[in-house]
Amino acid sequence: MKKILNAPSAYVDEMLAGLCAAYPADYRLAGDRVLLRAAGAVNGKVGIVTGGGSGHLPVFLGYVGDGLLDACAVGNVFAGPRFADCVSAFQAADGGAGVLALYGNYGGDRMNFEMAIEDLTSDTFKCNSVRVADDVASAPVAEREKRRGVAGMVFAFKIAGACAAAGGSLAEVTAAAQKAADACRTIGVALSPCTVPESGCASFEIAETEIEFGMGIHGEPGIWRGPLKSADALTEEMLDLLLPELDMAKGTSTAVLVNSLGATPYEELFIVYRRVAAVLAGRGIRIVMPLIGRYATSMEMTGMSITLMPLDNELERLLQAPADCPFWKV
Amino acid sequence: MKKILNAPSAYVDEMLAGLCAAYPADYRLAGDRVLLRAAGAVNGKVGIVTGGGSGHLPVFLGYVGDGLLDACAVGNVFAGPRFADCVSAFQAADGGAGVLALYGNYGGDRMNFEMAIEDLTSDTFKCNSVRVADDVASAPVAEREKRRGVAGMVFAFKIAGACAAAGGSLAEVTAAAQKAADACRTIGVALSPCTVPESGCASFEIAETEIEFGMGIHGEPGIWRGPLKSADALTEEMLDLLLPELDMAKGTSTAVLVNSLGATPYEELFIVYRRVAAVLAGRGIRIVMPLIGRYATSMEMTGMSITLMPLDNELERLLQAPADCPFWKV
Repeated sequence: MKKILNAPSAYVDEMLAGLCAAYPADYRLAGDRVLLRAAGAVNGKVGIVTGGGSGHLPVFLGYVGDGLLDACAVGNVFAGPRFADCVSAFQAADGGAGVLALYGNYGGDRMNFEMAIEDLTSDTFKCNSVRVADDVASAPVAEREKRRGVAGMVFAFKIAGACAAAGGSLAEVTAAAQKAADACRTIGVALSPCTVPESGCASFEIAETEIEFGMGIHGEPGIWRGPLKSADALTEEMLDLLLPELDMAKGTSTAVLVNSLGATPYEELFIVYRRVAAVLAGRGIRIVMPLIGRYATSMEMTGMSITLMPLDNELERLLQAPADCPFWKV
Repeated sequence: MKKILNAPSAYVDEMLAGLCAAYPADYRLAGDRVLLRAAGAVNGKVGIVTGGGSGHLPVFLGYVGDGLLDACAVGNVFAGPRFADCVSAFQAADGGAGVLALYGNYGGDRMNFEMAIEDLTSDTFKCNSVRVADDVASAPVAEREKRRGVAGMVFAFKIAGACAAAGGSLAEVTAAAQKAADACRTIGVALSPCTVPESGCASFEIAETEIEFGMGIHGEPGIWRGPLKSADALTEEMLDLLLPELDMAKGTSTAVLVNSLGATPYEELFIVYRRVAAVLAGRGIRIVMPLIGRYATSMEMTGMSITLMPLDNELERLLQAPADCPFWKV
């Protein structure tokens, strides 16, 4: 395992210590595994919490910030957060207007967040939850509720966060988050694996000439494995999976995220974006505020994903509303 | 070669096309290999140009933006920009108050920029140049003029750009850039190579258990090659090379950049930053606006660098002045 770390068992806590040391005006820890805004919950604002495994920076904890999330329950690498930390995250995010849990559709995360909601909900404390399930490779459209949450979470965080920052009620923030979650679709491709520090083993094995189309962000099996294609052919095949599920007529608008899984450099992302832009322009679809970079990673995995989120007026406005965290400023 | 691209010979131009398609309000091309601010030169402002090889995004071209650079001459991957493009960059950046060329200390870049200055300078068009030579591993301190320019360029761009945006004269912008270039020191470590698309070969070979301490961003030989150390030991050894060259007494301030060379993930950078912060705190040195991320890369190279720039009041003010490009907002 060739990684810059100390004891593998200290990886997450040392990462958290570095993050809080770097950005004390943005983040602080509540307990050892809950990250929240340094300024704490905002009185009268709907709180938004998330949580999930480590190893995906900026997802999940990085998006705690203005116009984004209020708190995050932090799990071990590629492992869900603990129940107690989910509870603490809700409490830390409570500004008196209710709290939305907005997280990726994984079994462990779902169990702990839903248990926390059951425990905490009272006449005076209202909680809702929205799960993001945007990975089209992980189940057919007829079984959307089985799909995993991947980079589309970034759009859901942004939309819900902007709605809450604008004074939306818990019902309104929940509806905005659900609208974003329903709208976004992602497909990824992996070229080489990452290594989970505590195991020391690659997350999957793959031949030097092969890629896995549709692989999940923890190395979950994709749709096909085969020889690497050209960037344009790969991009077109990815869009061919996304577009049929989306209602994007000529003249409509969409958000686009071309996301590196970690090691894939900016240069390759721009080569891909160039083709995405050409294909969408050819269909008369307008791209609003494209995101190109590392927004949802798997440490040093090589590969990338494309996320589309068709926009109505509300989503377009919330997407472009101000937001500020150390990893992303809008 | 496992990269997401089309024809290797089209790598740079397709990257540029994607970059301009993504950010048309920020960038445009003048000719095929000169990137400039979409709004063009600012009337009455000192222009700042840079240039260098591709494969280092956001360096060089990414830093064209408000409070940063005005134009960039873009070379092939790891190759200097053409003379004609250096000339075009100067012309594009000319707002009537003179132009500073601010670039990394590499022979080819130097030759073409200095020839361009010689050709262009007239009674009515003044040009200066400042070279950044911050890589302490590339020559001893007595031969600083032989050192290569690496991630410290980001600080020099920021300082010079802020001085120019504030209305500094060509002499003032040149002096600010020189002060930043003189102040900053960088040391890097490489864990695994990257592949130059047109050659298809790894930029160097290294055993699975070894690292190269002090390696340059194009794979230039470093100080030693040996087994990977712990993050803390590595960080301390890096600081032990930087600190003796810098005048940082108790109570002084410094800028810090913990930079990924490409594949090394955020998580590892924060583990390193945690130790940097502890060592500097132990010496009573205050860190101002730390940068942790991918600011100067070598495509998918694995490794990281640490840059320090001790701050006086002027550098601290210019470092924190507003700046805005698609890769960095201050």
